[in-house]
Amino acid sequence: MCRVDEVMSREHDKYDKVVELAKRRGFFWPSFEIYGGVAGFYDLGPLGTLLKSNIIRLWREFFITRHMDMVVEIETPVITPEVVFEASGHLHHFTDPIVECTSCRRKFRADQLIEEALNVKVEGRSAEELTRMIRENNVRCPFCGSDLGEVRVFNLLFQTFIGPYTQNKAYLRPEAAQGMFTSFKRVHKVMREKLPLGIAQIGRVARNEISPRQGMVRLREFTIMEVEFFFDPEEPGEPPLSRFGGNLRILTADAKVRGEEGPETYGVEEAVQEGIIKNKWLAYWMAVARDFIKALGVPENHMYFEEKLPHERAHYATQTFDQLVRISRWGWIEVSGHAYRGDYDLQGHMRYSGQDLTVFKKFEKPVTRKVEKVFVNKVVIGKLFKEKSAEVLKLLESVDTDLIKEALSKGESYIEIKGFKVPASAVEVRVIEEKVVGRKFIPHVVEPSFGAERLVLMVLDHAYTEEEERVVLKVPHHIAPIKLAVFPLVAKEPLVSIAKELFSKALAEGIPAIYDDSGSIGRRYARADEVGVPYAVTVDYQTPEDKTVTIRERDTRAQVRVGLSEVVSRIKELVHA
Amino acid sequence: MCRVDEVMSREHDKYDKVVELAKRRGFFWPSFEIYGGVAGFYDLGPLGTLLKSNIIRLWREFFITRHMDMVVEIETPVITPEVVFEASGHLHHFTDPIVECTSCRRKFRADQLIEEALNVKVEGRSAEELTRMIRENNVRCPFCGSDLGEVRVFNLLFQTFIGPYTQNKAYLRPEAAQGMFTSFKRVHKVMREKLPLGIAQIGRVARNEISPRQGMVRLREFTIMEVEFFFDPEEPGEPPLSRFGGNLRILTADAKVRGEEGPETYGVEEAVQEGIIKNKWLAYWMAVARDFIKALGVPENHMYFEEKLPHERAHYATQTFDQLVRISRWGWIEVSGHAYRGDYDLQGHMRYSGQDLTVFKKFEKPVTRKVEKVFVNKVVIGKLFKEKSAEVLKLLESVDTDLIKEALSKGESYIEIKGFKVPASAVEVRVIEEKVVGRKFIPHVVEPSFGAERLVLMVLDHAYTEEEERVVLKVPHHIAPIKLAVFPLVAKEPLVSIAKELFSKALAEGIPAIYDDSGSIGRRYARADEVGVPYAVTVDYQTPEDKTVTIRERDTRAQVRVGLSEVVSRIKELVHA
Repeated sequence: MCRVDEVMSREHDKYDKVVELAKRRGFFWPSFEIYGGVAGFYDLGPLGTLLKSNIIRLWREFFITRHMDMVVEIETPVITPEVVFEASGHLHHFTDPIVECTSCRRKFRADQLIEEALNVKVEGRSAEELTRMIRENNVRCPFCGSDLGEVRVFNLLFQTFIGPYTQNKAYLRPEAAQGMFTSFKRVHKVMREKLPLGIAQIGRVARNEISPRQGMVRLREFTIMEVEFFFDPEEPGEPPLSRFGGNLRILTADAKVRGEEGPETYGVEEAVQEGIIKNKWLAYWMAVARDFIKALGVPENHMYFEEKLPHERAHYATQTFDQLVRISRWGWIEVSGHAYRGDYDLQGHMRYSGQDLTVFKKFEKPVTRKVEKVFVNKVVIGKLFKEKSAEVLKLLESVDTDLIKEALSKGESYIEIKGFKVPASAVEVRVIEEKVVGRKFIPHVVEPSFGAERLVLMVLDHAYTEEEERVVLKVPHHIAPIKLAVFPLVAKEPLVSIAKELFSKALAEGIPAIYDDSGSIGRRYARADEVGVPYAVTVDYQTPEDKTVTIRERDTRAQVRVGLSEVVSRIKELVHA
Repeated sequence: MCRVDEVMSREHDKYDKVVELAKRRGFFWPSFEIYGGVAGFYDLGPLGTLLKSNIIRLWREFFITRHMDMVVEIETPVITPEVVFEASGHLHHFTDPIVECTSCRRKFRADQLIEEALNVKVEGRSAEELTRMIRENNVRCPFCGSDLGEVRVFNLLFQTFIGPYTQNKAYLRPEAAQGMFTSFKRVHKVMREKLPLGIAQIGRVARNEISPRQGMVRLREFTIMEVEFFFDPEEPGEPPLSRFGGNLRILTADAKVRGEEGPETYGVEEAVQEGIIKNKWLAYWMAVARDFIKALGVPENHMYFEEKLPHERAHYATQTFDQLVRISRWGWIEVSGHAYRGDYDLQGHMRYSGQDLTVFKKFEKPVTRKVEKVFVNKVVIGKLFKEKSAEVLKLLESVDTDLIKEALSKGESYIEIKGFKVPASAVEVRVIEEKVVGRKFIPHVVEPSFGAERLVLMVLDHAYTEEEERVVLKVPHHIAPIKLAVFPLVAKEPLVSIAKELFSKALAEGIPAIYDDSGSIGRRYARADEVGVPYAVTVDYQTPEDKTVTIRERDTRAQVRVGLSEVVSRIKELVHA
């Protein structure tokens, strides 16, 4: 076996162990198992739900609570009427290419099939191009070897209908973002019309993937954590970029085109100054994302940002970075997306709803501006055009002043507008002063977006270690699902009663804890280590005598003896619960 | 105006004010407003999301964390394959009657239409009965006055398809429960096969209501909070009912049949002993529900449990209580349901999946039981039935021993089984001793179930008060969305800087806070009172001198002067943040 294969096999091995542990101990497993399962759907078990809650709590802290002066959280429905996705472009753009075997009728993602068969990248190619590639390279059905049909596009929105009127088509949202766009105006008003304004949402989304084959990495239904951050493109404000230490590791689109595969490092401010990241706020949230992923236990050299090439980007984005983290088996996976969506979405919703979604910004004091205005001798126009004169006046008011100035400067005697010949002597362009109290504009948007379940897998994968034949899940203490294990040294009184009382006290104080009195103490430590419990307290024979217990830390296995009455508060401090 | 009308009008008035406040200050508003809205969908704004989070946190504390030794939380998908709802009975039973106008083609809920037109209760009536009622009483279309068609049943499940194969029909779950049932076996295993075992879930559900007209009370999509509590029906364990003080107010089914409308009070244990509540664990969770709703600010005399009559119950339940709370305009609304589901759901999933979902309980020590067994002279059978003898032997083994004993006692010479005549002399029934190590059974289930959005409305409705022309939202401090308002007395330095620093410190400590320096201090207090901020801190001219500020409490308006450095920890204590 060559070295690469060996590494690959070890990686597969690790991934399989993580998945086995997840299933056996209750982090996650395929949904609807008793019915044979459905690809792309996973349950989170008791430990997975606790871990996911902790990840969400941390995300909320990093992206909302710490920015509560400018970011608020809202909640909008999963089921969304069709018009919203017409306006957002998802009905036309949120698609994958699909191809069917002409013989066994199995359906495949055409791009994946070609990439695997020919070992090339085809992201962004049209259905016609993909069909041609299949024909030219004789790509065949991987199951039965027969010919494949034409490549078609398949929309990834789950479709449904609202109410008993089947014409009310609706879709499950594939991102939370559109809820923030359709409600932007109201939230902006509620927040007393301040900008910048971040609207965050944590909620369920669904994507009807054609044939998801990557376990928890590619789910058809998952929890998204998103911020749509709205700002004035002319006066975006000053994000405190200097607050961030360290660097961002970035693989730019240019570097990719040059054929480079690894990232380079840039200071956060430097990345903006050098034009690598085109918007300050985009850079700001990327730096927050870096710190957030670090806080989940991923070292910086296991993470970087990859700029997407134009054809790799979503339809709404003008610049996009994926935050990539290395995990076993699947390699570099996307854990967050950072898109500069500009005013694409609000523009779309203005067009489709007919509502004004612009923001009005009052100047500190009114500004006097010189503007050119067309003045018309109404009496002349009235006499000349009679019942048509109103129409002519309207045309003259809305016409570009340059056109009129040009005609006048040429000394022409008539100015012709839409077939009306207006005497030049009746028209004049004057410069006047106008008081302007503010400015109307469509805010621009940058969006950091995370999938919570993928982060659960990422955390487990990074935390999984084997030490002397034992599995230790080194989850950072502050996100560990269970904080404390309580053991009586032996399952006898009074040790059991003391241990159970301590366990109840911990629960009452809100510390997620487990009690275990079955098997040897070594086995119990191993069971706790395997699911990442950072502290284990043992009630032993000494306890009834001097009211002390031992606390053992998971990673160092260091033990300290502590007074029974202090244990709970001590653990609370240690895990920041 | 008569007294009842007056009260009604005041109630409507209050409700309208609550809804107006909710919209203006950002608790909730109809979704997709810019597209004209869609009935049954609401957004939660920034304050609504915070309030809902606090309600969920409290629910988690009451129903999960405090019971962590027996209740765990999981998360399962919203999108659910069809077979699950075939097994659960929802495909056939989760329906509402619908009737269409023959002229304008509008569709209505037939039961609501009849109830409104005839002022009778028709819950549980069949489509045929409802059609007859419409015909006999000449109920007509409320819009155009034309004839109505036949009443049909409309399934309330939102339908969709998984993947590109349109035959993979799926539905959005109308309750979280089925996820707990389909995963029961795995969770039970992960939890080391203990019973009782509560599996809780907080997540999105969707019900395709025909024409929801009650705002936040009846949503087509909402967050459910449910526990499926599994126990051994023979040895259910002893819930600590004596732990609960006070009473449960219950309107029993019997009392309803007798025509009573108000509840009677029972002690929690008494309700079980008198057979009012048929299961101890059902009573246990009802008592928890009572305490939970009280903790949300609802006094006990605004709440009671109503037992559902057989035809009012869901198809899976053998006893059900709705927990009702009185709110303005809508009167008594259901805030939780408490169903004794027995083994209905696990039975269904066993039948449809072919999987064994029973639980095996080992006896403390093996039990020796006397059992009757049929012994057969195989030689005789072999000679007599030749190639059919295996079949005959199988029949004899599975037949009821009583049948054979009866035949033998009558002295018959042949025993006839499925056409085979077996000589009586070749058959004998003997009593033998058998060692049994345990017992297999299907656990029974009780289910407390809450809708989170309805609780948001309930809390606001109960908290809304008007005092001297001012609105004060008296939300209990521990669930108030914003805990602290920070004001500089005037918008001048150094007051502004001091106030902003305090505000930042509060946010950094995780206290949801607002900063406000616009308008008079009185207006700012009013703005904070209106959204239920329990404490307002004012930085005044004295602050730069002696480093003290005033803290004002919302309900009493009492003010105390406190050192600037202690404010944050003081507020934390006060709100239990």
